[in-house]
Amino acid sequence: MAMTLGEIAVRYGLDLAGDPSQVVEGVAALAARRRPGTLTFCTGAKYRKQLAATRATAVVLPRELAAECPVAALISARPYASYARIAAGLHPPAAVTAGRAPGAQVAPTARVAASAWIGPNAVIGAGAVIGERCSIGPNCVIEAGRTPRRRLPPCSRVSRCAMTSSSAAAARSRRVRSSAAMASASRPTRTATSKVPHLGGARLGDDVDVGANTTIDRGTIEDTVIGDGVKLDNQVQVGHNCRIGAHTVIAGCVGISGSTVIGSRCMIGGGVGIVGHLEIGDEVIVTGASMVTRSLPGPGIYSSGMPAIEAATWRRTVARLHQLEGRRRGRGSTDSGGEGDDP
Amino acid sequence: MAMTLGEIAVRYGLDLAGDPSQVVEGVAALAARRRPGTLTFCTGAKYRKQLAATRATAVVLPRELAAECPVAALISARPYASYARIAAGLHPPAAVTAGRAPGAQVAPTARVAASAWIGPNAVIGAGAVIGERCSIGPNCVIEAGRTPRRRLPPCSRVSRCAMTSSSAAAARSRRVRSSAAMASASRPTRTATSKVPHLGGARLGDDVDVGANTTIDRGTIEDTVIGDGVKLDNQVQVGHNCRIGAHTVIAGCVGISGSTVIGSRCMIGGGVGIVGHLEIGDEVIVTGASMVTRSLPGPGIYSSGMPAIEAATWRRTVARLHQLEGRRRGRGSTDSGGEGDDP
Amino acid sequence: MAMTLGEIAVRYGLDLAGDPSQVVEGVAALAARRRPGTLTFCTGAKYRKQLAATRATAVVLPRELAAECPVAALISARPYASYARIAAGLHPPAAVTAGRAPGAQVAPTARVAASAWIGPNAVIGAGAVIGERCSIGPNCVIEAGRTPRRRLPPCSRVSRCAMTSSSAAAARSRRVRSSAAMASASRPTRTATSKVPHLGGARLGDDVDVGANTTIDRGTIEDTVIGDGVKLDNQVQVGHNCRIGAHTVIAGCVGISGSTVIGSRCMIGGGVGIVGHLEIGDEVIVTGASMVTRSLPGPGIYSSGMPAIEAATWRRTVARLHQLEGRRRGRGSTDSGGEGDDP
Repeated sequence: MAMTLGEIAVRYGLDLAGDPSQVVEGVAALAARRRPGTLTFCTGAKYRKQLAATRATAVVLPRELAAECPVAALISARPYASYARIAAGLHPPAAVTAGRAPGAQVAPTARVAASAWIGPNAVIGAGAVIGERCSIGPNCVIEAGRTPRRRLPPCSRVSRCAMTSSSAAAARSRRVRSSAAMASASRPTRTATSKVPHLGGARLGDDVDVGANTTIDRGTIEDTVIGDGVKLDNQVQVGHNCRIGAHTVIAGCVGISGSTVIGSRCMIGGGVGIVGHLEIGDEVIVTGASMVTRSLPGPGIYSSGMPAIEAATWRRTVARLHQLEGRRRGRGSTDSGGEGDDP
Repeated sequence: MAMTLGEIAVRYGLDLAGDPSQVVEGVAALAARRRPGTLTFCTGAKYRKQLAATRATAVVLPRELAAECPVAALISARPYASYARIAAGLHPPAAVTAGRAPGAQVAPTARVAASAWIGPNAVIGAGAVIGERCSIGPNCVIEAGRTPRRRLPPCSRVSRCAMTSSSAAAARSRRVRSSAAMASASRPTRTATSKVPHLGGARLGDDVDVGANTTIDRGTIEDTVIGDGVKLDNQVQVGHNCRIGAHTVIAGCVGISGSTVIGSRCMIGGGVGIVGHLEIGDEVIVTGASMVTRSLPGPGIYSSGMPAIEAATWRRTVARLHQLEGRRRGRGSTDSGGEGDDP
Repeated sequence: MAMTLGEIAVRYGLDLAGDPSQVVEGVAALAARRRPGTLTFCTGAKYRKQLAATRATAVVLPRELAAECPVAALISARPYASYARIAAGLHPPAAVTAGRAPGAQVAPTARVAASAWIGPNAVIGAGAVIGERCSIGPNCVIEAGRTPRRRLPPCSRVSRCAMTSSSAAAARSRRVRSSAAMASASRPTRTATSKVPHLGGARLGDDVDVGANTTIDRGTIEDTVIGDGVKLDNQVQVGHNCRIGAHTVIAGCVGISGSTVIGSRCMIGGGVGIVGHLEIGDEVIVTGASMVTRSLPGPGIYSSGMPAIEAATWRRTVARLHQLEGRRRGRGSTDSGGEGDDP
């Protein structure tokens, strides 16, 4: 889809410094080699050098950089957000093609909406419910529910959401290991592994995105619930009975243990681990690689990720940290350096 | 399957306060809306409020809460364990249906027991051995072995175990990267990536559960071995040549580097990373998000996960930690704050 | 393939202490039970006891252990590297069989080289380009590109590389969550989730190994690029627009956020998380479980993984760490222990 810069300025509410009749047909990186008819963006002064050399047709940028722009400038207080909207306009997503791709295995008792797409080699188990305009990617698995019974929910209900390749909802059937082994920094209890039947399902709201190789465990009694508009990136694990509020965004490689409730509009950074049975409020941000071990009120920002530094310095820092505890213990009694258990 | 409360009390050895002729047919959450004919559980006083409002037919609970129970009470010293056993009785797992689902690809030289189930679109490679009553979930992969030779074990031997969707055993064929890059906090050696042929297989014992998107690398020379009754949750990675002892439970998102040996009845928390070539004893508990860098004698509990706190406080704490090392270094000489390498 | 020890000594440049006419046909572990005709290795004095009892036919070992070797000794300054080369000679990898396995779904518009292998139930999307001698494992997914357009690259270009089971390249189509939620320890910005069209592809170089359940996101504008000879272990996540330099090795469970550039010959340890938009130089080593939050010049070794210790000691160490910050803040004003936010 092609647009003139004039059209873009009007449609997206931006000031234009340049020729409004110029046409752009696609997007390019700021530093990309010659791409006639492309739009790009520049978010700040640190990209000044690339801006000076850009070969795009037009650049979305903040007002303070407009004077330095060698080509047409579209001025925005939030250049990346404006760029994203324009790019989506230039490249509208292909409509979901309804139907079933070759190799898709859909159980006879699954209910699949007429407008849904089941990708190649995806597997939809017995009793699953796939709603209108869902797109289930290649090799995804929606596991079978138990034989549908009066009072039990169907296994998995997926509405208008997109699952990328090789994801699995309602991943666990019938079995659990004791949740006592889940990420817990305190009081691990030594319950033997007892098998609890998993009788709930997984329920995904509208406009949910599920990344590649992400897994969602079914609930043990009630459903695991993923709210409307939730985005789960790749390689995320959502434990049984979790409830994730609307429009929460979860980055890649996050693991959430069973029965944790996360509020709406939260942002959980990459590689975060969240212990089970917690309550995370609305609009909570957890930065990358943190471990959440207690309920967090929202809104708020929480962290425990440790930034990498030069390895030798880090080793000494760890040693110093352990001495801190050793010294304190040694004060009134002996001067021994800890417990002999530290490395 | 329906049972009267009287039957349940007798069969599971619990005291009953209530009408023994009442019937339950399923389970529900303590706080669930009206569910006639359901059983639930309450583990302690912190759920007192939900107990008072419960609409289940009967509740499994500790003796001290019996007086507060508005419905029939089944009294247990360990309510959750009792509940799990009763729930399993009310919802017996469907028997594994022997056979091959549509889309399953089984190599002609694989040996699959008559009582095993190969799920839809699962792939069983050449030379794999699938034992009696195994359940291989949808889209799982058991990779091909090399051409079977006299002295080499068959690729993968799987006995009476259940693999959830999209898991892979004997995932790596023929190639390895240098194990020197695996999680190691000390002495990383700079071996160039040499390709070592992977000639072993993966051997899974009886009653092993393998979670969704879990991967098990085959051994380089000997087999990778997963002992009887081991539970691997979702998104676990088990490196080549690892040996995991019987009844050990490994939570989600755990990564275990090659050649590490883990004992029996261990509990490894979510997101833990374990360096290669270690020995972990029996009955070791590692709490969530810890990094194990040395062999750990068992039994014992080990940790290094850092709980998330408010982000601004955490940033200052990290700065203070780095100053600790800088100050100490600066004492006798200069007062410089470390090495200029810290953030 | 069988070789005499004499042949091995000549071909791999090793000194031999033993009968050059003895034949080995395969490899075994140092401690393995009787394996006639096998070769093994011993890297150092800590395996002295196993060496004394070995039942292999010949052992590759350092000179200082030669006198203790009860069988034929092949002497090498780097025994494991020599062993790896000999093992590869004894067990040459089976040639890739060209063709398409049963259940493979290849879109009509994908271009697959005649010498490539598409494994069982693998899915190759529209517009993908699979180069000569590629091996795409069972259940892998190469996602569809957008309708090919003049100025846009084809979705995914894969050359002479091997993908193990269930991996996915170009995993994300059309949608992104805001990258602001990605692992970031500082300044998370609260951009609402804006959908940016993903218009790039993923381009894999020659001799790339992609592990099981590893995911590679396509680029948003330009391609995500994986250089020649790169090894990605299992369960790795590579974000959109990342560029990974030649011969870099990435261990299991690593997550790399979008737009990060990693140099050549780097080694990234297991479980590492890397924030987006960073530049990592050549020959950088990041040890296991570290979180990289800033650009790292190379060569160098960087760390922030915390080794697990006995749990009670660790809990006190964490408390002491938090007091450090509390005390410092309390100095000039009150003596309160921090902010009430610490656990």
